[in-house]
Amino acid sequence: MATIAVIGAGAVGGYYGARLARHGHDVRFLMRADLAAVRERGLQVYSKDGDFNLPAVSAFGSPEEIGPVDWVICSLKATAIEDARRLVSPCVGPQTRIVALMNGLGIEERFASWFDPGRVFGGMAFVCINRGEPGVIHHLDYGRVSIGHFRDDPAETALLRDLLESGGLEVAVAPNLRYARWEKLCWNVPFNGLSVAGGGIGTQTILADPELHATAETAMREVIVAGNADLQAAGSTARLDPEETVPRMFALTKTMGDYRTSMVIDYVLGRELESEAILGNPVRRARELGVETPTMAALYALVRHADRVRRSLQPVLTPDVLDRPAQVV
Amino acid sequence: MATIAVIGAGAVGGYYGARLARHGHDVRFLMRADLAAVRERGLQVYSKDGDFNLPAVSAFGSPEEIGPVDWVICSLKATAIEDARRLVSPCVGPQTRIVALMNGLGIEERFASWFDPGRVFGGMAFVCINRGEPGVIHHLDYGRVSIGHFRDDPAETALLRDLLESGGLEVAVAPNLRYARWEKLCWNVPFNGLSVAGGGIGTQTILADPELHATAETAMREVIVAGNADLQAAGSTARLDPEETVPRMFALTKTMGDYRTSMVIDYVLGRELESEAILGNPVRRARELGVETPTMAALYALVRHADRVRRSLQPVLTPDVLDRPAQVV
Repeated sequence: MATIAVIGAGAVGGYYGARLARHGHDVRFLMRADLAAVRERGLQVYSKDGDFNLPAVSAFGSPEEIGPVDWVICSLKATAIEDARRLVSPCVGPQTRIVALMNGLGIEERFASWFDPGRVFGGMAFVCINRGEPGVIHHLDYGRVSIGHFRDDPAETALLRDLLESGGLEVAVAPNLRYARWEKLCWNVPFNGLSVAGGGIGTQTILADPELHATAETAMREVIVAGNADLQAAGSTARLDPEETVPRMFALTKTMGDYRTSMVIDYVLGRELESEAILGNPVRRARELGVETPTMAALYALVRHADRVRRSLQPVLTPDVLDRPAQVV
Repeated sequence: MATIAVIGAGAVGGYYGARLARHGHDVRFLMRADLAAVRERGLQVYSKDGDFNLPAVSAFGSPEEIGPVDWVICSLKATAIEDARRLVSPCVGPQTRIVALMNGLGIEERFASWFDPGRVFGGMAFVCINRGEPGVIHHLDYGRVSIGHFRDDPAETALLRDLLESGGLEVAVAPNLRYARWEKLCWNVPFNGLSVAGGGIGTQTILADPELHATAETAMREVIVAGNADLQAAGSTARLDPEETVPRMFALTKTMGDYRTSMVIDYVLGRELESEAILGNPVRRARELGVETPTMAALYALVRHADRVRRSLQPVLTPDVLDRPAQVV
């Protein structure tokens, strides 16, 4: 059994941490808004895979109280990436491994600049999840975690896979971490982008409108071209196959109901959007590689603008970076 | 002196018609909302080229009262294109020439299907203009009209040029009408599109944001590629030169102040947008030609969606297609 610190125990961190704790791991949650409620009542997970309750949860208000652990799972919002070093460091000892369970591109690179790159991992959660009242998590659908090691070391990747599988989680080991990041972006760029650029719309609105549907597909194909160029530049032989990926992503989206992306939820609530991690960094990487991604760039421009306008109109209600409700896909 | 019917005497029709009337032409305005006010008090034009008043104006409530004339200037909104036949027909005799002074692509084609194609013209007004209270027009800037004949007959084009110049107007004769349409779209597609897709923003917001600026330029270059393909397909040797057009359009836009496009004004007022004429028809033409225009298509998708949502939220206050306030660029 491992000691695990969950840094940023919102919906994602809370859900995956609860699964691991339920299977006997010593999971220590860093919390803010939910701290008192969770210490008093524990965590309640309503899940399509079966509800469960963790009556006694190790919840802390600072990472110093947690101290060094075997594994850190950092599930902060990508907008809080620059806070990650400060919040993760107190939990890192000489043997600690760190998993960045966060959206977007350019995430592990930050962790690898702060900590031993040989002990940095990335994870992408394909999951539909919400936070309810304090201490309550609603797991609506999916749950697979796609993982990779920063240096794509298979032995290290296997350690993370074993850890997650020991929590009863479904794990996909990508050909490499870069591939996994771009594969996730195939969904996030078109659907998060259009959900906000379209003024706050759900996935079914995008699928049902032939022009929005076509724009989503064009954006997805641009992500694939940029991702493959990035993989090639990194010396990887792995490639995203558009003829497999595009129909699979649209088929997946069809089954989601009228899903609100994490970005649209942040947008509606007047919170900072993960614009840079999900759109800006991929657009900039494509530009460096000389790949044209006009649809991605237009979505980036519109989402960035919408984010600024929205937040200039409405102060952020909870400045808490740790305990925000989140949806993840 | 000519007899002229102005069909759709909003800001554009009212302004150009008033200029022609002031120089002695017999101009007959089809009006609805402003009819009583104009019959009583005439037309007042506040113009950067000098204010003027037309105390006695021939204003009518139906085209039948106007009857056949030498020239029809049809300045209906492009969304009212299917009303044009009914409204223009009573003014057309065997010698009548018809000018479609309207935005977008696919406009003259409709008129040429209803009337003698040899007597159909197109006009694009590069003008910043608003309607004020009934009978009052504010001419803010510019005013040049770019013209062409449906069959690009130079002798016919010269007749229209002479008519407009006799009203003291600045006229540009394009190499051909198709060229003139696409040239105008070089401005309308990026700026009308982004002004609405950006949630209702002015031109300076687009210019000041580097990502929106880049998206505007990408869209403009797509218009040029599509326009040149359309010109080639039509057997024309005229071409839009991106290295001349792009800097010229951006320089023009810089001098406009924080201009609200006609589309954004319609959007804010909950009126139907000229989405099909300005965005949909060019996108469909590009698709027919096999030209990729991802940015145009994304703007079309988002504007079309915004239009539907907006109008589903708010009933159109004035169903009048004739007398809507308008800005033109």
